[in-house]
Order: sequence, then C-alpha cells, then structure tokens
Amino acid sequence: MRDYVEIGMGREARRTWQLDDVSIVPSRRTRSSKDVDTTWNIDAYSFDIPVANHPTDALAGVEFVKEMHAQGGLGVINAEGLIGRHEDLDAAVRKVIEAKTAGGNATKVLQELHAAPIDLGLLTERIQEIRDSGATVAVRVSPQRARELAPDVVKAGTELLFIQGTIISAEHVASDGDPINLKEFIGSLEVPVIAGGVSDASTAMHLMRTGAAGIIIGGGFNSSGPALGIETPMATAIADAAAVRREYMDETGGRYVHVIADGDIYTSGHVAKAIACGADAVMLGYPLAAAEEAAAAGYYWQSSAAHPRFPRGEVEQLFEEKVSLEVLLKGPATDPWGGHNIIGGLSRAMAKCGYTDLKSFQKVDLTVN
Amino acid sequence: MRDYVEIGMGREARRTWQLDDVSIVPSRRTRSSKDVDTTWNIDAYSFDIPVANHPTDALAGVEFVKEMHAQGGLGVINAEGLIGRHEDLDAAVRKVIEAKTAGGNATKVLQELHAAPIDLGLLTERIQEIRDSGATVAVRVSPQRARELAPDVVKAGTELLFIQGTIISAEHVASDGDPINLKEFIGSLEVPVIAGGVSDASTAMHLMRTGAAGIIIGGGFNSSGPALGIETPMATAIADAAAVRREYMDETGGRYVHVIADGDIYTSGHVAKAIACGADAVMLGYPLAAAEEAAAAGYYWQSSAAHPRFPRGEVEQLFEEKVSLEVLLKGPATDPWGGHNIIGGLSRAMAKCGYTDLKSFQKVDLTVN
Amino acid sequence: MRDYVEIGMGREARRTWQLDDVSIVPSRRTRSSKDVDTTWNIDAYSFDIPVANHPTDALAGVEFVKEMHAQGGLGVINAEGLIGRHEDLDAAVRKVIEAKTAGGNATKVLQELHAAPIDLGLLTERIQEIRDSGATVAVRVSPQRARELAPDVVKAGTELLFIQGTIISAEHVASDGDPINLKEFIGSLEVPVIAGGVSDASTAMHLMRTGAAGIIIGGGFNSSGPALGIETPMATAIADAAAVRREYMDETGGRYVHVIADGDIYTSGHVAKAIACGADAVMLGYPLAAAEEAAAAGYYWQSSAAHPRFPRGEVEQLFEEKVSLEVLLKGPATDPWGGHNIIGGLSRAMAKCGYTDLKSFQKVDLTVN
Amino acid sequence: MRDYVEIGMGREARRTWQLDDVSIVPSRRTRSSKDVDTTWNIDAYSFDIPVANHPTDALAGVEFVKEMHAQGGLGVINAEGLIGRHEDLDAAVRKVIEAKTAGGNATKVLQELHAAPIDLGLLTERIQEIRDSGATVAVRVSPQRARELAPDVVKAGTELLFIQGTIISAEHVASDGDPINLKEFIGSLEVPVIAGGVSDASTAMHLMRTGAAGIIIGGGFNSSGPALGIETPMATAIADAAAVRREYMDETGGRYVHVIADGDIYTSGHVAKAIACGADAVMLGYPLAAAEEAAAAGYYWQSSAAHPRFPRGEVEQLFEEKVSLEVLLKGPATDPWGGHNIIGGLSRAMAKCGYTDLKSFQKVDLTVN
Repeated sequence: MRDYVEIGMGREARRTWQLDDVSIVPSRRTRSSKDVDTTWNIDAYSFDIPVANHPTDALAGVEFVKEMHAQGGLGVINAEGLIGRHEDLDAAVRKVIEAKTAGGNATKVLQELHAAPIDLGLLTERIQEIRDSGATVAVRVSPQRARELAPDVVKAGTELLFIQGTIISAEHVASDGDPINLKEFIGSLEVPVIAGGVSDASTAMHLMRTGAAGIIIGGGFNSSGPALGIETPMATAIADAAAVRREYMDETGGRYVHVIADGDIYTSGHVAKAIACGADAVMLGYPLAAAEEAAAAGYYWQSSAAHPRFPRGEVEQLFEEKVSLEVLLKGPATDPWGGHNIIGGLSRAMAKCGYTDLKSFQKVDLTVN
Repeated sequence: MRDYVEIGMGREARRTWQLDDVSIVPSRRTRSSKDVDTTWNIDAYSFDIPVANHPTDALAGVEFVKEMHAQGGLGVINAEGLIGRHEDLDAAVRKVIEAKTAGGNATKVLQELHAAPIDLGLLTERIQEIRDSGATVAVRVSPQRARELAPDVVKAGTELLFIQGTIISAEHVASDGDPINLKEFIGSLEVPVIAGGVSDASTAMHLMRTGAAGIIIGGGFNSSGPALGIETPMATAIADAAAVRREYMDETGGRYVHVIADGDIYTSGHVAKAIACGADAVMLGYPLAAAEEAAAAGYYWQSSAAHPRFPRGEVEQLFEEKVSLEVLLKGPATDPWGGHNIIGGLSRAMAKCGYTDLKSFQKVDLTVN
Repeated sequence: MRDYVEIGMGREARRTWQLDDVSIVPSRRTRSSKDVDTTWNIDAYSFDIPVANHPTDALAGVEFVKEMHAQGGLGVINAEGLIGRHEDLDAAVRKVIEAKTAGGNATKVLQELHAAPIDLGLLTERIQEIRDSGATVAVRVSPQRARELAPDVVKAGTELLFIQGTIISAEHVASDGDPINLKEFIGSLEVPVIAGGVSDASTAMHLMRTGAAGIIIGGGFNSSGPALGIETPMATAIADAAAVRREYMDETGGRYVHVIADGDIYTSGHVAKAIACGADAVMLGYPLAAAEEAAAAGYYWQSSAAHPRFPRGEVEQLFEEKVSLEVLLKGPATDPWGGHNIIGGLSRAMAKCGYTDLKSFQKVDLTVN
Repeated sequence: MRDYVEIGMGREARRTWQLDDVSIVPSRRTRSSKDVDTTWNIDAYSFDIPVANHPTDALAGVEFVKEMHAQGGLGVINAEGLIGRHEDLDAAVRKVIEAKTAGGNATKVLQELHAAPIDLGLLTERIQEIRDSGATVAVRVSPQRARELAPDVVKAGTELLFIQGTIISAEHVASDGDPINLKEFIGSLEVPVIAGGVSDASTAMHLMRTGAAGIIIGGGFNSSGPALGIETPMATAIADAAAVRREYMDETGGRYVHVIADGDIYTSGHVAKAIACGADAVMLGYPLAAAEEAAAAGYYWQSSAAHPRFPRGEVEQLFEEKVSLEVLLKGPATDPWGGHNIIGGLSRAMAKCGYTDLKSFQKVDLTVN
C-alpha cells in the first residue's frame, strides 16, 4: 500500500524517495564484473551500455554523438538547441562560456542565441552527418513544436525521436490551438518515439498507451523544485513507472515500454540505483560535461536553461579537468567518487550483487536510510 | 487523523511539515501556461496576481506600492514603520543601509529611527498619495496599536486594513488595559480587515469568526524559531487553515475567508506550493527585495526587525543585482532558480499540473520526501 | 506508548527528539508579555528568572555570580575549577585565552592549570565573598569528589550544592573504593542538592529518590556524542523527567523535584522549548559567554573541558562583541536571533501562547517537523 | 519485525540506520572506568583492546604493526599493497604524499606504484620481521588473489589471515575461472581467517558457515555510496550480524564468530556505538592516520584507493598535527572530540553505562534521533 501522511487537516501527501535516499544491498553470491552484460535493446536498436545523453548543446554536437556511438551509447541532439540554429555551433557555444567566464549573465546570452530561428536545412545537414557516420540518429523535439518539426527531422534520417520537455502529458491542451494528442501523433510517425519527462504513475501509464517505445522519468538536472515547486522523487517515480510497465504489459499482452531515468544522476552509483529501482537506461547530463568531446567541455547547461521567459538550470562550469568520454564511461578511472568509469561502476555494483544483466538487476534488494 | 509522536513519556507532539518538505505532483493533462488565470478576488477587490508585499519599509514606499498596483498585485505599507514617522523616508532608509554597509549595528539604527513618534499627518498624506494614484490602499497596523491608529488610517483612505503581528489571536488580554476583542473591533470598522499571523487551526477559526476578510498564516521570514521557539510549519498551517475555511463556510452558510501565506516563501516554487497547500494568496518579502522599486532595493528587513526590546529579523543585503518589479513578477527571467518571473513560474506549475485557476489548483496532488 | 524502531534484527532503539526538532504552538488567547511571571522557586529559594549558569570558570568568577544574583538568577561556581585552585583567577583565565589566541593548545593549558591542587582555604574565602554580597551561594562538585569536598564547601556557606558530572547515577560503583550512594550522602547534608546530568527516565527516578531537590537533564554543551557515543536527546529526556516527576510526586504524596535542563540551549527559543518540554529551569553556558561580566568574556569552555585524560568540550572564542549580563538576560536586544534578552524572549513566547507562569507553560502544545 | 517502506508501487525497501543515527543510553549504575576490561579474545589470540587497523599502506608498515602490538591491538598489513611490492616502502609512500602535496593526481601515482608486481620474497621478509618482533602477524589478501597468495603468506608466518575486499560473499563465481568457495578454501588453511566486508544478514550467515573466525562488516571509509550505490548501513548491518551470530551459535551448538566493524568509525564515540550495536571489535582507518607511527603519518588512503580501473577512496591529508599511537589509543587526550584516547573514550562510555566488559556492553540501550 502507498505510504501517505496527513500534512494538514484532511490534506494527504504521499511519502516519496530520491535516489540519494536508497541504497543497493548485495545479498547473493558475488560475480566477476567481467561477466556482466550491460546491453540495452530498445526497438530495433541495441546499445552496449544503457546510456543516452541529456539533449543539450553543452554536450551533443556531432562529434560527441559519434563518440557516444563509438562507446556503445546513444547520442541525442536537441533540434531546438543551438545546433539547429547556428551554422558555427562552436562559436555559439564559446559565446556562452565566455559570458560565464567573464562573470556576465550567461543565461541571457543563451536566450539571445536561442532567439535565432531554427534552420531546417542546417539541422537536416547535421542529422545526415550523424547518419553518415554510422551512429544511431536520435533527435529531441519539444512537445510544443513536435508537430511542426518532427516530419522534417524524421525525413532527414532520425531513427529515434525524443519528444521531451521538463514535464509532459499524453495530451496537451491549449485554448488557442489544437491540443496535441501524443497517441495519434506517435501513431503517425514511422520511427520509435521516446517521450517524457514524467514524474507520476498515472501520466506514465498514459504515455505508455500513446505507443511510445520508451518514457523518460524526471526532468533533467534542473531547478524545477525551486522554480515550479515540482521535484520528481526519482526513486519513487522510477519504481512506479516500472510497476506501470508491468501493468501495461499485462494489458497489452506483452508490449514492453522502456523506462529511462533523467534526473539527479551524478555518479556511477546513481546509475546503478536508477537501474535497481527499475530503469532500463539512463540519460546523463552533468557527469558527461567532463568529456573532452562535449561541445562545451567542462561547462554545462540543460535544454530548459535557454527558455526565453522562465529558464531553468544554470550555465555552470562543472569540471576544470577533462578526460575522454571513453574514460568517463569505461575507465580506467583516477577519480574515486564514481565520476569516471561510470559503466565500470555499474558493472561492479551488479557483479557484487550477483547479477549479470540489467533486467534482473532491477530486482536487487534496496534499503532506505 | 492527525499524526502524533510521543516525544517523551506521556508528551505528544503533532508531526508537521514545511513548504520545503512538500512537492507538487503533475498527474493530469498539461495545459498551456497562457490559459492560466491567476486572478485573486477578495471582498470588492480584484488583483491579477495573488501577491501582496510583506509590510516593511524595506520594500513599500509610495513608489513601490504604485508599481505593485501597476503589476496587478497589492502594495501594503506599514503604518508603524518609518513611512509614518519620517518625512524623508529615503534618508531614513539610507541610514539603515549605511549602518549595515559600514559594518555597524543596523538593527540599532532601525530601532532608533522607530523611536520617532508616528506622525499621523504624514501618514495621512502618504495614504492619500497612494489613493490618488489609483492604487488600492492597504495599510498594516499592529494588534497592539490597532485601536489607536485604525480610525485615522481608515479615514485617510485605507481600503484594506491589515492587522498584523508575528503571532496574534482573536482576543488579546492585558492585565493593565482593556483586552482587544478583534470581533468587536473589526465589526466597528468600515473596511475589510486581513488579520494574522496565525500558525494553528484553532486560532485560525477564531480569527475567521472575527469577521476578517482574510487571515494571514505565518509570521514573515523571521527569527521566531531561534528567538521564541515558535516556528510556523507553513505547509501544515496553510492546509489546516484551508480545512478550517471549509468548516467555517459550512458554519456560516457560505462566508469565504481568504488564507494568505506569509512565511518561508523565497521562490516561485514556494508560491506554487503555498497555493497548492490551500492558500488564496501570498505575501512576499524577501524575494521582492531584488526590485529596483523597493525602498531599500537589495536590502531587506521585516517589520518585527525594529522591535525596541526584542527585534526579530536582521537587516540584510540580499541582492547585489536588482531588476524591475515587473521582471521579478512577470519576467522574462534570466535567473534560473525561481527568483524572477515569479508569476510565470506559478502559472507554469499550474499549467503543467493541468489547472487553470488558483482555486482548483488547491487540490493538486502533493508528496513529501 | 514509546515509539521504537528495529535498527537491526532483534535490536530495538527508542526514537527520541532534540529541542531543535520541536516547536511550540500558540493556540490560545495571546497575553501581554508584561503579565508574564518567570519566578522560579526551589526549596527555600526564589529566583526572578529560571536561570542558573553552567558551572565553568569561563563564566563564573565571583563578580559574575554577584551580577547573576542582581539579575534575579542563580550563579554557580565550580569547586573543582580554577576558582578553587588559583589565587589569581584572572591570570589563570587569561593564560587559557592567550593559548587559544596564539593558536596553541588551549585544552592542554587548561589541563595544566587544573593540575594545581584544590586550595580549600581559597575556595572558602571565595564562597564567603559571595555569601557576604548577599547572593545565593551555589557550588558544584563532581560525584567523584563530592564526599571529600562537600563538607568543607557546605561549611563555608554553600546554600545550594550541585553534584554534577557529565553523566551520573544514584549509585556509583568502583571496585577499588567505597561506592558512593547519593541517597545516603544527600541525606547527610544540611543543604539542598541538585544532581545530574542524567539522560534517561530510569536514572531520573533513581536520582529523585535520593532526596535531591532538583535533577539536571543533559551534560552541558559538550562533545559527548562524538567522544562517548552518548548524546542526550534533550526534548525527550526533559519530557521523560517531567513524567517521572509526576510519578514520584504520586509515590511520595507530593514531593516535587525540579527538572533543570543543561544542554543544547543556545537561544531564548531553546529556553522556551526546554520549559515547554517540562523543565522548571535551565542552566545556560554558551549564551552567557557574551556577558561582559563573564570571567573569560567572549570565550567559553565547560567544566569537562579540563579533564586530564579525556577532555570534552573545546576552548572556543564564541563572541567578539560583548554586552552586559543584563542585556543578555533582559534586553533591550539588538541581536535578532534570540541571543539577547533571553528572558524577554521566554516571556514573549509564553505570552503569545497565552501563559503567564512557567508551570502552566509546561503544558503548551508542541509539534515536531 | 523488519521495518519496510514502499519506495514505489510494489517496491519495498528496508529502513536501515547508520552509526551516526544511533546513540547510547546510560540507564544503570555508573561504574569507574578503571574497572572496565576491554580485552578481545579471538581464537587463540588475546588483545587488550578490540582494535585492528584497516589494512592500508598509509598506516601499516612494519613499525606501525609493532607499535599496535605494544599498545595491545592488532596490526594488519596488506599483502597486495605497496609493502609487498616496493623494497623501499618509505620512498613509495613519500611519492604518493608528494603527488598530493604538489596538487597532482595522487590516485594515479598510487595506481602506478601498485602496477609493480608483488615480490613474495620481500613480503615474506616483512612478515618474518613482524613475527620476530613478537607481534601477532595479521595479513590481508583479497578474495581474488587469496588462492594464489595465501599459502606463501601463511608459510611466512601469518597467524591471522584477513580475506578482505569491499564486498565479498562466501562463493565468488567467475565464468572464466574456478569459483572460489571460501568454505573449502578456509578449511584448507591452518590459520584462522577473518573475512569480509559484508553488509547484510544473509551474506553474514554464509560467511560464518565458511568456518571464518570472524567476519568484517562494512567496506572501510570508502566511496562505495557514490561509486557503487552500495552504502553499508553500519548500525543495522552490525546488529544484523550479531543476530546471525546467535543463530549460528545455536545451529553449531556454540561456535562463536566474531563481528568486526570496518566503516564510518571516526571517533571513540563511533567505536562505542559499533560495540553497542553488537560488534566484538573494530578496524580503524581514518582516525589512526594521526599516528606518528603511521607509514604516511597525517595522510590516508584505504586499500581500494589503488584499484587500477575503479579506485574508491581518496588520498587525503587528514591531520596536520600528529601524536603517538599511544596517545591516539590510550591518551591522555588534548583533542576534545573523541579523536584521542579512543580506548579511554570507549571505557568511559561503558563505565557510564554501568558495563565492565565488551560482551555485556553489546546489550546497552540505544536510541535513534
């Protein structure tokens, strides 16, 4: 049964948990981490590691996406980011960093750079460049602009479409326009869709019913708590989504919708906990900012940081020392806090708990402190 | 049922919650934030936004009140503050800031400036200046001096009277004077009264029965915890007051008393949470100190900080960078933490949860972590 | 019923609460703080304010005790402190402060100064000086040396004897000496005894049965948590002792033993909470270090800080700015955090909750967050 | 019954506790700390104090082990550390410290120094040097290399073998090699084995059944939380192991397996709490780094910090001021926070609670806050 508290007379609130509240318990025979398989299969695609990047220009230029592919993960570009607006992406990214370094208002610079229109030709070119490299092409659009952008983006070669906002629902209603019904919309597309973020079981179920191949739990590493009063309790939300996934499988006679965690994941320990709570894969933002291949290597902001009227998420310098994406994901690490060799950390956590594949690791024992 | 713990043998304490303990859960169809209506109607007055300022000279000089009105909110001046004691308000405010800047004891300077007598002529003049501007005239008096000051303050043109202290009750008893019975007193006035702060359900009910149009929950951003051992648990106290409001409506066959939250509200997320817990409107102190139009722009203290023998609340420099009140309330923001575009944040929180008016948003799901 | 958790299989632990976990709830008619009576009567002695000092040389030289008396409180000297060992107390205190200021090991200096023998003649002289001033004479001895020192200390004029260690029990057993049985020992003395600290109900009951006039809850502001793994949960321990006090009254047909709180009390809010939990009076250490009249004005250490082999509690500079003990206790305050006008804060807390005497304030409502 | 919470729909997690969450309650007659006996007997060995060191080169060179013996404790060297790889251990340790001091990557230097092969001749020589000094010889090997190294290590004179990794199980399975079955392996050795770390009851029981003389709870002061998502809840894990120890005694008709705590123990208070939760002895890492006799005196890293691909635990400077191991363990202390005279602190905690031996102190009352 859910655990509810009465916060005031007649007003109940469910008790929820963050990833930092839970811990994994090793209680079976240990295994060798070499025997661990971290393969993530979604739709027709198979990835060696269950990792996509959060779709921000701070990470994902074309080079980064290629390197993500080389490392066995999934690179995702943001169709509504600088990458689709500025011919010289490096120069645009540099402007943001320079504003930050000079102590200026980097958020404002980011907003100004996003005021430039989306250049579909440029976006198409970049999508094709990724496609030509042999990497899986994954592109993020917002729910607001999905209808407008998705057809071109798909035509340009997108293989996995992310319809991703801070918080989305299966049906968005606006009095001054047509509502977007994701079920119909996704049904009209020829590529698998991953949609989110969501933070509760009910919306998760509705999103699964839209036909999405995967749903995203959480809204990135953002400031939704202070700014909106909405903070996704990641451990609870992932576990709820995993429960809903089982219900939906039952309802559909076996359709499996992937649960992808995107929030409060800073270290390999968080990745392990997210999977342990029920996620199939994770989106990494913050920790990948240490990659030499990241567009803003060392600096980070997430997509919502560029919102014209209500930005969420700062432009920050996160790392002075950068390492290759390979070291970040596969080591060898010299950072002892789970920031390097993230997949090595995940594999070791699984092995120490006696599991050798991701799906079964979703059943590992948990504790809360 | 309430949740009680036994803190010692035979000694129970109710478990309570702060705004920072709760989070809002979006679990319905999302809406467009453009469709959100934040109108707040109280008595004959209608405000575009459910926001009044905490009545402190650090914010509310005459210019600030005019600008609050221009932005659709309610400006409240403090009849017992510097504004009613010093002809040259700017000079008085400057003295406080200078004492702070110079590392002196700004609290002491504030106390000294408050030792000057209230000048009813000056106060009347200022009230009329606000009235002449077309802004709604709201004035705060303390319960201790309400009887003495209210008649003149009302005569001068006050439209909404705030009888506000850190903690008040419906009946204040003093052995060396007449007790003040708010029911009789409010009944004798010709303007609607908003009274508070209160922090428990029983006092809230008593205050509602005085005939007040609204009651205030909380006692500002003060030091009542360390100084008095009394810390209002804002989420619980608001939810309790909302429950009492329902009871009182039933008791009176429909009289609706407004619940106004004044405490621990620092960001747009806190505003959204306060409404979600059951508030009809909020009083903002701290976050409005970043307004260029604030009397002490960048600096802040609350009314109780000037108490002659037991001041609560520091004189603080809160913001180096100031923006217009318009940006603070309506954006566009360049601050990503809910400090700017406070109403934009509230509207987005409501829209993401699928609500388009304040009253129904009071029913949104909540969690605690 | 007590609230227990199972920390491990078959191992239970009671859930307890600190003063910082609880808050006072004002839920009755407010009163004027001028109507509040803070008188504390214990045995034949009556104090205007329910405050004694923690017996440390950092506070209580002869001048400080006189000023405590002038302010209506109780000054307590430490028979085993520097005051009974060094003719020139000021010089001794100065040495400790100088070691601290010079970045040396002030604890070591304190230990060396305590290696000097207790000079009974000197101690007698100082006790008589206090007596001659008209102040109530209160002296602290440790349980270990009570038998040796108490007779002389009492003969010299002590009116209230504190038998106080970090943690004491009604009967102390040592294989190489006679056990001290406090019941017999207290019975043999002609002055009322206040004994402690204790942190649990069972020891509290045993101490009450020794015939003590008061028992002390807590062990000062010390480092018993990190050093001993024993941390008194002040709110719970006070409430337990108050419950035991009722039981003991019943058992004895009306003997009332005072509960005096000595731990984690830093502000007027903590004083109010301690009384609200059931204490009759408090011992203040840390906050009184800001008194100009304190022996080490601005600096603080507690008695256990001088232990020769296992000191607990640091020599610290707590305050740069000092004020008179009168301001600390009775104001007017310019510090807004409950550090000044401590009794003013207590009185206001009581008045805002509608209570006018300490005994009834022990029933005020509490919450935990 | 265990205390479980539902972190998400259908997903339960047990509630667990850290040492910092619990506190010891003195509720019996106090005793003299001189009457306390801290003897720890394991197998044929008897130690005056229940303390071994965490097996890291930062502490345990040959001189340190000798001094541990002189103080009544148990020194443990790490067969896979620098001590078995570098003829000039001091020079190797110095290189690590110099890298740290120079702001370089000390973890990398540590990894490089561990890339040197284990020199069995050198290791044998050092083991014999310890043996010749009369100290008990205790050597740690990892579960991975136990089979390869243990025979030589035992032949060289090891009296107590530690098979210790961050997390181990009774049977380690690797697809590309023979699994190691600790039961068979321990059965084949002629010396008592202490094995761990473990963090749950089930693994604890399996390890007891291997025939180990003792099991280790916890994985040192490491970064397993952030790096692996696995954080041992020390209070719960110790209490669970103590419960399992009783079950296993019953199962075997009286075989007593020692529970040794190795994690989150920084002060004498933590030592007391670990014993109070059910441990028979503790391994100290961090606090012993202040010993003048420690190999890297003032600096610390634990064994897992040298892992070639996934290091856990930093190279840190912990102490600028060093004291003798004697002062650290037995005082007299001048540090008031339980960092010095660790056994004095334990003895006083026991005495204040009325216990005079370690075994009975495991039953002392506990609280949680």
